[in-house]
Amino acid sequence: MKIAFIGLGAMGFPMAGHLAKKHEVTVWNRTAEKAAKHASEHGSKHAKTLAECAGAELVFTMLPSSAEVDAIVAELGPKLSRGTLWIDTTSGDPEVSRVTAKRLAAQGIDFLDAPVTGAIVGATNATLSIMVGGTAEAFARAKPVLEITGKKIIHAGDSGAGHAIKALTNSIMGATVWITAECLLLAKRYGIDPRTALEITNAGSGRSNASENLLPLRLAEKQWPLVFKLALHDKDIRIAAAMSHREHMSTPLLNLTTSLFSGALHQLGDNADYIEVAKLVAAMNGDEW
Amino acid sequence: MKIAFIGLGAMGFPMAGHLAKKHEVTVWNRTAEKAAKHASEHGSKHAKTLAECAGAELVFTMLPSSAEVDAIVAELGPKLSRGTLWIDTTSGDPEVSRVTAKRLAAQGIDFLDAPVTGAIVGATNATLSIMVGGTAEAFARAKPVLEITGKKIIHAGDSGAGHAIKALTNSIMGATVWITAECLLLAKRYGIDPRTALEITNAGSGRSNASENLLPLRLAEKQWPLVFKLALHDKDIRIAAAMSHREHMSTPLLNLTTSLFSGALHQLGDNADYIEVAKLVAAMNGDEW
Amino acid sequence: MKIAFIGLGAMGFPMAGHLAKKHEVTVWNRTAEKAAKHASEHGSKHAKTLAECAGAELVFTMLPSSAEVDAIVAELGPKLSRGTLWIDTTSGDPEVSRVTAKRLAAQGIDFLDAPVTGAIVGATNATLSIMVGGTAEAFARAKPVLEITGKKIIHAGDSGAGHAIKALTNSIMGATVWITAECLLLAKRYGIDPRTALEITNAGSGRSNASENLLPLRLAEKQWPLVFKLALHDKDIRIAAAMSHREHMSTPLLNLTTSLFSGALHQLGDNADYIEVAKLVAAMNGDEW
Amino acid sequence: MKIAFIGLGAMGFPMAGHLAKKHEVTVWNRTAEKAAKHASEHGSKHAKTLAECAGAELVFTMLPSSAEVDAIVAELGPKLSRGTLWIDTTSGDPEVSRVTAKRLAAQGIDFLDAPVTGAIVGATNATLSIMVGGTAEAFARAKPVLEITGKKIIHAGDSGAGHAIKALTNSIMGATVWITAECLLLAKRYGIDPRTALEITNAGSGRSNASENLLPLRLAEKQWPLVFKLALHDKDIRIAAAMSHREHMSTPLLNLTTSLFSGALHQLGDNADYIEVAKLVAAMNGDEW
Repeated sequence: MKIAFIGLGAMGFPMAGHLAKKHEVTVWNRTAEKAAKHASEHGSKHAKTLAECAGAELVFTMLPSSAEVDAIVAELGPKLSRGTLWIDTTSGDPEVSRVTAKRLAAQGIDFLDAPVTGAIVGATNATLSIMVGGTAEAFARAKPVLEITGKKIIHAGDSGAGHAIKALTNSIMGATVWITAECLLLAKRYGIDPRTALEITNAGSGRSNASENLLPLRLAEKQWPLVFKLALHDKDIRIAAAMSHREHMSTPLLNLTTSLFSGALHQLGDNADYIEVAKLVAAMNGDEW
Repeated sequence: MKIAFIGLGAMGFPMAGHLAKKHEVTVWNRTAEKAAKHASEHGSKHAKTLAECAGAELVFTMLPSSAEVDAIVAELGPKLSRGTLWIDTTSGDPEVSRVTAKRLAAQGIDFLDAPVTGAIVGATNATLSIMVGGTAEAFARAKPVLEITGKKIIHAGDSGAGHAIKALTNSIMGATVWITAECLLLAKRYGIDPRTALEITNAGSGRSNASENLLPLRLAEKQWPLVFKLALHDKDIRIAAAMSHREHMSTPLLNLTTSLFSGALHQLGDNADYIEVAKLVAAMNGDEW
Repeated sequence: MKIAFIGLGAMGFPMAGHLAKKHEVTVWNRTAEKAAKHASEHGSKHAKTLAECAGAELVFTMLPSSAEVDAIVAELGPKLSRGTLWIDTTSGDPEVSRVTAKRLAAQGIDFLDAPVTGAIVGATNATLSIMVGGTAEAFARAKPVLEITGKKIIHAGDSGAGHAIKALTNSIMGATVWITAECLLLAKRYGIDPRTALEITNAGSGRSNASENLLPLRLAEKQWPLVFKLALHDKDIRIAAAMSHREHMSTPLLNLTTSLFSGALHQLGDNADYIEVAKLVAAMNGDEW
Repeated sequence: MKIAFIGLGAMGFPMAGHLAKKHEVTVWNRTAEKAAKHASEHGSKHAKTLAECAGAELVFTMLPSSAEVDAIVAELGPKLSRGTLWIDTTSGDPEVSRVTAKRLAAQGIDFLDAPVTGAIVGATNATLSIMVGGTAEAFARAKPVLEITGKKIIHAGDSGAGHAIKALTNSIMGATVWITAECLLLAKRYGIDPRTALEITNAGSGRSNASENLLPLRLAEKQWPLVFKLALHDKDIRIAAAMSHREHMSTPLLNLTTSLFSGALHQLGDNADYIEVAKLVAAMNGDEW
């Protein structure tokens, strides 16, 4: 199948690589060097202009936010043929993707919001989980291709549902990181070493992805690598908060988490890693890990 | 070893049973019938009065809260010999257990706070995790006996550390249940079935004990059994909140969780199960699962 | 001056009455009976259709929300002459009013967002405070007319600033009502009668419009009249929350207040008065006033 | 009457001065210089030791917290005669004052908790409001003397009620300062000058002691004097939070306010003024006033 892949960041680069093993892949990237590199390493075709992507039967986007996707849709959309399938793997905004889907549907193009989870390692090893919003028919067309880049491909619901559940699960995770950091700092005040506290947490009721996979490196090993930007995590939580607002819901913990993360972003800066919020939890208490 | 086991509730009954296979166990319970039943089923000795427990080398307590433990310590403590080891497996209050430990230490008795996690199934199968506060020496004495009832025995720190980390991990769990319920309700508003939303959550970043083991039965199967009383869970969260207060800490998510659970208890009543807070999350939004 | 007044609710009716004493006022209302009544009582002219308002030099709107204003602007706007001044006294949404102002400006029409405060008594006695967003020139034109219906006319800033500050001050008030209710309920638990607690609060640091003018009737006199719908107050707080979201701000107390009021609206229903949130504060504690 | 006045800080010094005009006042202060100064300026008698206060019919304390009062009670209490009246004007802890009152009652001494509000200017001009906890009889004895130092003397309820309502009203004020700062910062983002925003707030529904008397100097005049230590304000809020905990209440706004103030204290330091929390509200948003 002719596939165009747009957006060769840390996630998109390896994803497009997997696809290139089985399909005829054209890649486009705002910074052209990355596309050239991909072409030489993975045998894909480097598109110098977006227009060169117009012949694709399937278009992938993997961009920072729905705003960038929107811009690409505006430029490339009108050039695509009826029957094209567009899979947006960006962590986007469900409201925007609903509108985009409707707009493209009018042209006979299927649009799926299909954000991924599993981090760079999941993209590299093709073990991503992918949550998909759109029609059952479009999902059925997309599934075999998505299985090349991911392990668990789930149809979440109608258009927007993929972006919605991605924002929501990342918000759960954000809140869990924060409450776990609060409680482990309190444990430290009671003389319980973070390493021990994490071991006990992970053997018991408070266990989570945050306590098992995210916090040990930082709190026990004292390593704070930049794995995922706080600014991007904050964006996901804010998408969830906007969803709650739109649905006129009462979600006190989500709302407070939103404030805490936005405050953290302002205080820690644009280049902070998302788990560095744990440092702020300590700073708010005149403490450190 | 001569062991006295005090408190034969849903957890204590099977725990004392395991101990009785390897040790000479005397059991006492406020409602005597349970002790008689234990004696006949597990070959333990039924103590009609607390005084009959005085000859034990090792005393176990498994009671609703530190208040009940305190009352037993006041009555039985003075009758015990120097060198007795007291293991309190109650989910208690670290401030109270610190005072109790000091009081018993003056009599030459070692007191360990050793709450457990793993629920009734863990008590029945002897697969509990046990987190222990007290001296390293007392922990070393207790460990082989605790290994009869549990699988993972961890020395958390000094006196009070066991109760502290238990309250903290249960608070993490409480907050996680609540935020997950908020986000899954929001997912439902976006047309995502709770079953699908849980499947995606558990395949991704928002995964936790709450999403894997606690919420599926309720939100996907619509079954709301009474597994653990909300009143007891609320007690644990309030212990954590009191710890935060005592340490003069800023813990916004823990503080809000405390308010939400106390409010839930007032609205759902004393016989509610702890996961029924998810029903309140829906009710606050004029919704149901 | 020829004035059209659109929206004769509890506030608009007396406001249009005051204007009719000094100007030639045409009134329109969705339910025509009210317009007929106004014409007969205040000597205004009853417009049967919106088109009859087209000759006005000055258009007033006083409607439930920006959505209704938007609909009127769409219908009436194109019929107005260049140079018309439109004063929207609705408690509206600053984002919507910015767009409306821009749209009407393109037609040479000045649009001011000019929400009021002071309740029905203020509208009746022409003692309202009016906060105005728009250009300094349009404000200068509007001021003498607004002084007929209000006592304090303040230029808040550019387009949207009136609606923005209205939503914000009402949000401050909502939060103040809630925190005061929490603390007075707590006082009650310490044996302090709400009447005494209010007297002390009003003699000291915790004094506010809420404690002086809103809560005494309810908490001391036990009267709960419907003065202002909770649904409308909730709308204002949600406008403020959306503003915070748009500005990417961290506003934890505002965010929590939003959740509390939305939850209250779902639990108390559409016909509740806004101060009835104090009843929910008590119900969350298994208590009543 | 023979009066002993203990604690000559910014508040106690002028209060004792007013009493000395009408009564025979002995003053004691930890830093003796202040007592000597008082004696020379106000004609009081400088007690070199606490024991010299033992002859008083009426003892006043005005100290930083209940801990200091407790220490004085322990030392001076046993030396007092039956029938002595002790008025503690400290902003204290109701739990502690209840215990103290019971202890002194056993000696035939009446203890009133009688904290004041009105700041240094109120102490200087004898216009304080004083809220009193204790028996009606003791209140009746105290009232004429309290009227020398204050204008509004209110019997709040039984022992502890004075300290309780003081902590509660200061907590209301703290929350009001914070929510007002959040909303005025948001107004600033919408182009509304803080001076204008305050003017509008004070003409409308969001008006409070915070918006009328506390924030204008800081937000409009950009002056941040040290008027009342944040550390003391935080202490009052924490007393209220402990009261809520003791009563097993659900008070979400109070709980969040507690976390915000404790976090602010850790970040702004021990010498910050209480209104400087408004600076933190801005800093959490990468902004300043």
